Amino acid sequence: MGRVWAARGVIDRVFLDSPQYRCEALEGALGCGVSVKLETANPVRSFKGRGTELVASRLAAGGARAVVCASAGNLGQALAWSGRRRGLEVTVVASRFATKAKLDRIRALGATLELVDGDHELARERAAAIAEYEGIRLLEDSLDLETCEGAATIGLELMEGTPTFDTVLIALGGGAMATGVGYVVKELAPDVDVICVQPHGAPALTRSWHERRVVTTDSTDTIADGVAGRFPIPEVLDDLLLIADDAVLVQEESIISGMRLLYNHAGLIVEPSAALGVAAVLEDPTRFAGRHVLTIICGSNVDLPTYHRWIGTPGG
Amino acid sequence: MGRVWAARGVIDRVFLDSPQYRCEALEGALGCGVSVKLETANPVRSFKGRGTELVASRLAAGGARAVVCASAGNLGQALAWSGRRRGLEVTVVASRFATKAKLDRIRALGATLELVDGDHELARERAAAIAEYEGIRLLEDSLDLETCEGAATIGLELMEGTPTFDTVLIALGGGAMATGVGYVVKELAPDVDVICVQPHGAPALTRSWHERRVVTTDSTDTIADGVAGRFPIPEVLDDLLLIADDAVLVQEESIISGMRLLYNHAGLIVEPSAALGVAAVLEDPTRFAGRHVLTIICGSNVDLPTYHRWIGTPGG
Repeated sequence: MGRVWAARGVIDRVFLDSPQYRCEALEGALGCGVSVKLETANPVRSFKGRGTELVASRLAAGGARAVVCASAGNLGQALAWSGRRRGLEVTVVASRFATKAKLDRIRALGATLELVDGDHELARERAAAIAEYEGIRLLEDSLDLETCEGAATIGLELMEGTPTFDTVLIALGGGAMATGVGYVVKELAPDVDVICVQPHGAPALTRSWHERRVVTTDSTDTIADGVAGRFPIPEVLDDLLLIADDAVLVQEESIISGMRLLYNHAGLIVEPSAALGVAAVLEDPTRFAGRHVLTIICGSNVDLPTYHRWIGTPGG
Repeated sequence: MGRVWAARGVIDRVFLDSPQYRCEALEGALGCGVSVKLETANPVRSFKGRGTELVASRLAAGGARAVVCASAGNLGQALAWSGRRRGLEVTVVASRFATKAKLDRIRALGATLELVDGDHELARERAAAIAEYEGIRLLEDSLDLETCEGAATIGLELMEGTPTFDTVLIALGGGAMATGVGYVVKELAPDVDVICVQPHGAPALTRSWHERRVVTTDSTDTIADGVAGRFPIPEVLDDLLLIADDAVLVQEESIISGMRLLYNHAGLIVEPSAALGVAAVLEDPTRFAGRHVLTIICGSNVDLPTYHRWIGTPGG
């Protein structure tokens, strides 16, 4: 916990103390109390800046000149933002199928963007190769402690005051957010349920959690680009086994319904990964009836035409 | 200033320390530095909770049982929220032409909603009559100091740290936000320009500011429902004359372009009043070229079908 408190002192305040509020307008449709933690109202529109601030500040303090990461787009944007203000050269490797808005913002923030003709796992390989060849730091999401500690600062904020919720729903991708937030929640409020949510189309880490061993998949098939990994990291699984009370999978149509609900009733544009918690409630309303869930709205970077193909247009 | 600091101690923290960040994605289109102060990420999706928290807490402390206000919808929602948690009976009078989403939320928050067959000025008359008949407190937006002090706490937050902006663009309606925020800005950073923005279709207070006397209009014609008043309050004009460096009027099409920009580039659903600052830059880019403006995104309560008729749908 000391490291998490220390992290708060390093992270730029533009990422800290994000909005957290009960969202009654969602409660009718979801049949339970609903609070949101909004990680989209910052310069990179996702929670990833919390982790990249730690990485970049440590690198800059150590005299490093460059850093590379693989990213579905949000980590890359955040690293570009944090690196730029500290004079670091940032290289981001992404799939050429990544969300265009994310790639555009990475470039706009001055990072070098390299695209691979494959999925996120190929981007991870390529980033590792660049790091080795260039002799620079490879930032590995969820494996590198800074990414988990950054996310864990969300947990500290959730736990300020008396929690009004009994369940936290966390999108599960590489695992940094789930392990980081889950660790703090379990330290400070062990009775609060920590439930991780992943798409059926990218179930590797959830399956691994249930089988208590690393399970990989051959492919992913989900619109939730931010959580579409195939190769869980063993160390992350170990942490996840300690903190998660459950890990559930949701259908694509539930993710879309969740995005639509958040748009129509809460006025929030969110990316698919950020709707996983709402999707979990939609798929299992009896489980959550009468409870009070908090879900972390972890990102809002979407290609708007695609977004509206998914959710439609109210009145249109 | 002491009263404004004191207000921070009374207002529920869900309304305080709202997100404030530079939004580079808007800068290309606007040709200047752009920061936003986001007053929409809270339970009532506007800044009005800051003021109603002060009103409701003072009323509750004084043993009052009820309060009434006229509202275009946001003040009413906020008063309903603040009153409910303190056991106050809240009556809101609104025009039957008000934004439906706002009226729905006022009802959902347990307030009594009375609709008048006319505009906001008629609602003000009716609210005053109810207050007199019932012998209860009439909350008058912009005239009552709590509404200005509540808004002024936004100013305190803007001025934390070293301001990166040289201009603050504030939507001008009844004047609470402009006088409240403007007062603090001018106290703490007199060199920062305070520019109020109102639609051509509801120009009474802007004309009054320029003529240094109260000017009324016979009607209003604007989609910016939150700022559509006809009868400026003399005391508010006096304050506005002390703190505003300028007051400008913008066209409806600029408001819509501003809403569209905020949607497409910043991922923000905003109501028309919240796009007035961006509209002002769009109408006079040379004035703002090379400057850094901060604009307060003051509300996001829209009827989505109407909203999309205004701004269209990306890709659709």
